Amino acid sequence: MMKLTILGCYAATPRTLSNPTSQLLEIKNHTFLIDCAEGTQVQLRKQKIKFTKINHVFISHLHGDHFYGLIGLISTFMLFNRVNDLHVYGPKGIKEIILLQLRASGSFTGYSLCFHELETTQSQIIFEDEHVEVHTIPLKHRVYTNGFLFVEKNNERRLNLDAIQNHNIDKVYYNKIKYGGTITLDNGTVIPNRELTFDPPKGLRYAYCSDTMYEESIIPLIQEVDCLYHESTFLESEAHLLERTMHATAKQAATIASKAQVKQLVLGHYSTRYPSIELFKQEAQTVFEEVILADDGKIIEIN
Amino acid sequence: MMKLTILGCYAATPRTLSNPTSQLLEIKNHTFLIDCAEGTQVQLRKQKIKFTKINHVFISHLHGDHFYGLIGLISTFMLFNRVNDLHVYGPKGIKEIILLQLRASGSFTGYSLCFHELETTQSQIIFEDEHVEVHTIPLKHRVYTNGFLFVEKNNERRLNLDAIQNHNIDKVYYNKIKYGGTITLDNGTVIPNRELTFDPPKGLRYAYCSDTMYEESIIPLIQEVDCLYHESTFLESEAHLLERTMHATAKQAATIASKAQVKQLVLGHYSTRYPSIELFKQEAQTVFEEVILADDGKIIEIN
Repeated sequence: MMKLTILGCYAATPRTLSNPTSQLLEIKNHTFLIDCAEGTQVQLRKQKIKFTKINHVFISHLHGDHFYGLIGLISTFMLFNRVNDLHVYGPKGIKEIILLQLRASGSFTGYSLCFHELETTQSQIIFEDEHVEVHTIPLKHRVYTNGFLFVEKNNERRLNLDAIQNHNIDKVYYNKIKYGGTITLDNGTVIPNRELTFDPPKGLRYAYCSDTMYEESIIPLIQEVDCLYHESTFLESEAHLLERTMHATAKQAATIASKAQVKQLVLGHYSTRYPSIELFKQEAQTVFEEVILADDGKIIEIN
Repeated sequence: MMKLTILGCYAATPRTLSNPTSQLLEIKNHTFLIDCAEGTQVQLRKQKIKFTKINHVFISHLHGDHFYGLIGLISTFMLFNRVNDLHVYGPKGIKEIILLQLRASGSFTGYSLCFHELETTQSQIIFEDEHVEVHTIPLKHRVYTNGFLFVEKNNERRLNLDAIQNHNIDKVYYNKIKYGGTITLDNGTVIPNRELTFDPPKGLRYAYCSDTMYEESIIPLIQEVDCLYHESTFLESEAHLLERTMHATAKQAATIASKAQVKQLVLGHYSTRYPSIELFKQEAQTVFEEVILADDGKIIEIN
């Protein structure tokens, strides 16, 4: 299971009752922060999330409603005498912005602050360990923007118990087999792993796509993901704003979800011009059924 | 009367229920913003203050808890299609920090954004018009820091009604006399203004001093001001932290207030380590009686 906490999901500017974009994704042994608008550290406090669990921050693009809270979070980590490395993934330029402000305040971080600046427009793997992979999803917006695909790795192959019992293999070898090992029987016969196992179940995948206009080139990258967050700044009634702003409508988000055959679609990055976010769900469901509305503080479990 | 709205007055980092430093000063025909920590724009909304009234922002120093909210405010002004010039007064370096972030987002402000960068350690007048003057108050902190002295100009001289009636001067001339005009009587005699008026009452003065260590050199600049805001990060029990942090205690703030014979002292910039801010008032009042505790959302009238 992954746990997605929406810290903020409204467009443009922080307001009294709504926050611009930030999300927290708990995946395997990691707590990833995705975007970090002004006020994110207060939203983390409101959700009672231990700041120090966050070691990786992914910034989609350098519009203020997605990253103006990062410098404050980094400064707060300094005050808290953080020790662990902090990794920041974001567009080229983010390092200079952060370091310029730290220098101006005569500060330095006691912890290592590692920037991973992005500039390619091809999807690439930007984080990988034993349990998790993170890929970029190149998006189309007014400035250089990436979405992110978070993938749980599933390294454990499933045991083919019939085959294993046919060969009278003892239980002590099961773990070896799960992780791809071959078995040598007492008579010297070598049994290759593929005869004893099935492929592992596919790991869960979460795709974060914001901000972006309607862009079909992302479909192969997010094909059949378990959960897709796709921005829906507008409704179709504001379609005339799309070309200039390079945002998407709820219907367009649903069309992407449908074409990519994702399991569920989460909508967000709402313009605050509408009287109710239910309108986004209604519009999206004319195209795709499994729609969840993001809202500040909402927790979404991805199974 | 001046009206001071405390938007935030706690040290270090934004929390769920307390905000770092920002104040709004309404003085004559101006609405001045003093410091602008992360979350200031939300605090302005909570106080139902019309953003567009703010044309001047004064930043004391480049620590995050005094200016990380400025870039967000400037961006929100762009979204609101602001037209009026915005003047920013602050330490050298502030312009580069703001412009770097605007460039990274591919943004430009439709309004004029005028930076007035400060670098002298002598007090100077940085704003002046018919009604108001603003002076810097050089402070001692870990980075280059200025407090600000806000002065109402009083241009209207008080009428000496006895003298005016002795000369049988008609009421239609009263305004001319108030603004320093001389009067020529029907018989040709010229009456100089000083015979018809008294000096105007002194204009109100508000001094903002944060962040700073105890520094007696500021006393002549703030002598007898109507209201002094002086930081009190600590109580005397934490005096051992003063040298390293270059902050002041409540007792030190009160000592400055007493020596400068100010009318009232407002305390703020509290460390959140203490169970109650009442402790700051108690400590300060051992030295100086007229103490007000700043608190987020509090409005202080200066008469």
